[in-house]
Amino acid sequence: MSRSPGEIRFTLLAGGDGAERRCRFVTAHGGVDTPSFMPVGTDGAVRTLTPAQVAAAGGPAVVLGNTFHLLLAPGPEVVARHGGLHRFMGWERAILTDSGGFQVFSLPGAEVSEAGIRFPDPRKEHAGREVWLDPEESLRVQGLLGSDIAMALDECPGYPATREEVAAAVARTTAWAARSAFAHDRADQLLFGIVQGGTFPDLRSRSIAEITALGFDGYAIGGVSVGEGSDLIRSVVAETAPQLPPDRPRYLMGVGLPEDILAAVAAGCDLFDCVIPTRYGRNGTLFSRSGKVRIKERRYHRDLAPVDSRCTCYTCRTFTRSYLHHLFAVEEPLGATLASLHNLHFYQTLMASIREAIEQGRLADFTARFLDRYSRPRRAATGRPRRPRRGRR
Amino acid sequence: MSRSPGEIRFTLLAGGDGAERRCRFVTAHGGVDTPSFMPVGTDGAVRTLTPAQVAAAGGPAVVLGNTFHLLLAPGPEVVARHGGLHRFMGWERAILTDSGGFQVFSLPGAEVSEAGIRFPDPRKEHAGREVWLDPEESLRVQGLLGSDIAMALDECPGYPATREEVAAAVARTTAWAARSAFAHDRADQLLFGIVQGGTFPDLRSRSIAEITALGFDGYAIGGVSVGEGSDLIRSVVAETAPQLPPDRPRYLMGVGLPEDILAAVAAGCDLFDCVIPTRYGRNGTLFSRSGKVRIKERRYHRDLAPVDSRCTCYTCRTFTRSYLHHLFAVEEPLGATLASLHNLHFYQTLMASIREAIEQGRLADFTARFLDRYSRPRRAATGRPRRPRRGRR
Repeated sequence: MSRSPGEIRFTLLAGGDGAERRCRFVTAHGGVDTPSFMPVGTDGAVRTLTPAQVAAAGGPAVVLGNTFHLLLAPGPEVVARHGGLHRFMGWERAILTDSGGFQVFSLPGAEVSEAGIRFPDPRKEHAGREVWLDPEESLRVQGLLGSDIAMALDECPGYPATREEVAAAVARTTAWAARSAFAHDRADQLLFGIVQGGTFPDLRSRSIAEITALGFDGYAIGGVSVGEGSDLIRSVVAETAPQLPPDRPRYLMGVGLPEDILAAVAAGCDLFDCVIPTRYGRNGTLFSRSGKVRIKERRYHRDLAPVDSRCTCYTCRTFTRSYLHHLFAVEEPLGATLASLHNLHFYQTLMASIREAIEQGRLADFTARFLDRYSRPRRAATGRPRRPRRGRR
Repeated sequence: MSRSPGEIRFTLLAGGDGAERRCRFVTAHGGVDTPSFMPVGTDGAVRTLTPAQVAAAGGPAVVLGNTFHLLLAPGPEVVARHGGLHRFMGWERAILTDSGGFQVFSLPGAEVSEAGIRFPDPRKEHAGREVWLDPEESLRVQGLLGSDIAMALDECPGYPATREEVAAAVARTTAWAARSAFAHDRADQLLFGIVQGGTFPDLRSRSIAEITALGFDGYAIGGVSVGEGSDLIRSVVAETAPQLPPDRPRYLMGVGLPEDILAAVAAGCDLFDCVIPTRYGRNGTLFSRSGKVRIKERRYHRDLAPVDSRCTCYTCRTFTRSYLHHLFAVEEPLGATLASLHNLHFYQTLMASIREAIEQGRLADFTARFLDRYSRPRRAATGRPRRPRRGRR
């Protein structure tokens, strides 16, 4: 059931050898320069943003679509009638679809067996309806969506989980990965396998051996960022990533904050996805080189500076912190849009800087400088020279 | 107290004589070709849209800002620190600000006297705070906002209202207009007076005589679209507009639906504003040449056609009705953005068509054709040839 290798065009451009690396691989919708961050387009849209805005926000090469969400609405047949997810959502570059498993496993009432997963439709208006997902069905749906990168269905335990639970998930993930490799038949779609193993090094190694033996176009580190915290994520990633094949993309699922991405890049990871830039944006937390800006705070009421003075995104070129503060204060939806747009641009700019630093062999230096500035306690910029506060406490 | 005339550069290009007309006037932020529709940017943003999206949606020459809302948040001083509302909200073309009166009069607890209006701050977190608005204060605020067109504070009765109430509002509006004309001192800001008079023709005529005697840069028909219905709006407008000075812009406040705008244009009105395109958009009602499309309806689930097949807006160029239906079904905020953008574009395209029709002397014909198509009962386009439904009821 092993897939024939060589289906992915993958090039290692710089770095490697168990450390950070600069790679490029090709999809049916263009090349992907890594390390790369993929914005999440859950329901066929990167929340609050048009595809034109996403493309302008630093130009991500890949966005992620959620198989679980699109399976429920509008249904893969409707997307297929459009000619696939690219046409449906107006996105011209690459799309990666997850397998749907991650969301299904967190549903109350999901019943898992060797055959697959039966789960209740979580939408109120479809109460009582049951949905079936298994490796073949996941790939059928991802085929109808027409993504450039499909993911094999895996079993992702939560955290904490016992050794027995994690070992069972590793075994099931391998069995499902084999079925996925056998079922996959779209020549224009890459297929990535997922390794599990939780926080147990030997189970991780076993999962890596079993999944890589099947021969996928790329490998994802699953079962992280499920509540175990940054320190455990980092140690798992540092042990896992170097064991993955050097000639395939390595995708760390669901990570994360800038500091977590930097650590994972140093361990040799190539691809990342996370809802953080858009979710934080909607909640009024904006990223800047000087750390996070919680724009709802009163101190930004009269602040004439942009969110990040060196940022070139539309939001920073056009608006002040004061304006963004105002939009959130009056609950104008444009605030979420502008903040999401800025955060996506921040992430894409960070990834471009990371790629450049790796090419120049100075990632450790870049990371140290970035984190020093990013983590320093911040004071509000006022956009005007600060007057001495004589006579005030 | 009369203002010196000739402060507005106004040109009648075509039509006139008590009927439709094609005009142009100049503001500090560019010329305005009329008839023209002004999108509403209540809180310093056209709801859900970036200024770049608003500009791309058919290029409105003027957007409207709400003095009442901006007075409360962020406060006119914060806007003035930015150099005015244009810089604050990133809008480079003209801005008209209303006087704030319309919103204040609808507040429970507002106390009106000859001097002005005292009203409770309606925001929960400022409960107990009182705010004062009078003709001079309204113009001070509008001066700080730096709009290109300011409106004189008026008293706008609701509907229905007795003859005595309307007569009192006419008298107060004249007194406040005189104070406004005296207080106004920004050479780069046009000042429009507002006529009241409700649905009483003789009170309308009295208000017109009194307000025009003061000599404003333009004249607004106020006190319409307050619940009296389309037929009464039309008869009031048909009687009022031709009595206004022919060499000044005529602004019909708060109108409206395409059919109401067409009727008012035929009566000689030049400027319009309304929340309808954006509010309808957020609620999933999209305008098309073939009438309104209620995109949440199930029949659009699989509809591969754009909202309007001949529309050139970003939404119609990029997305199907099926995709928009999906965004509203999953409550993705991008749906409101794309629908608002399309509706603004529809309105701007309609106004451009109206201007062209007036120039060519065929407005009546254009209106008849537009309404015939727009009002015809519609069937769902499927994007595929319709199959005969043999054997189905």
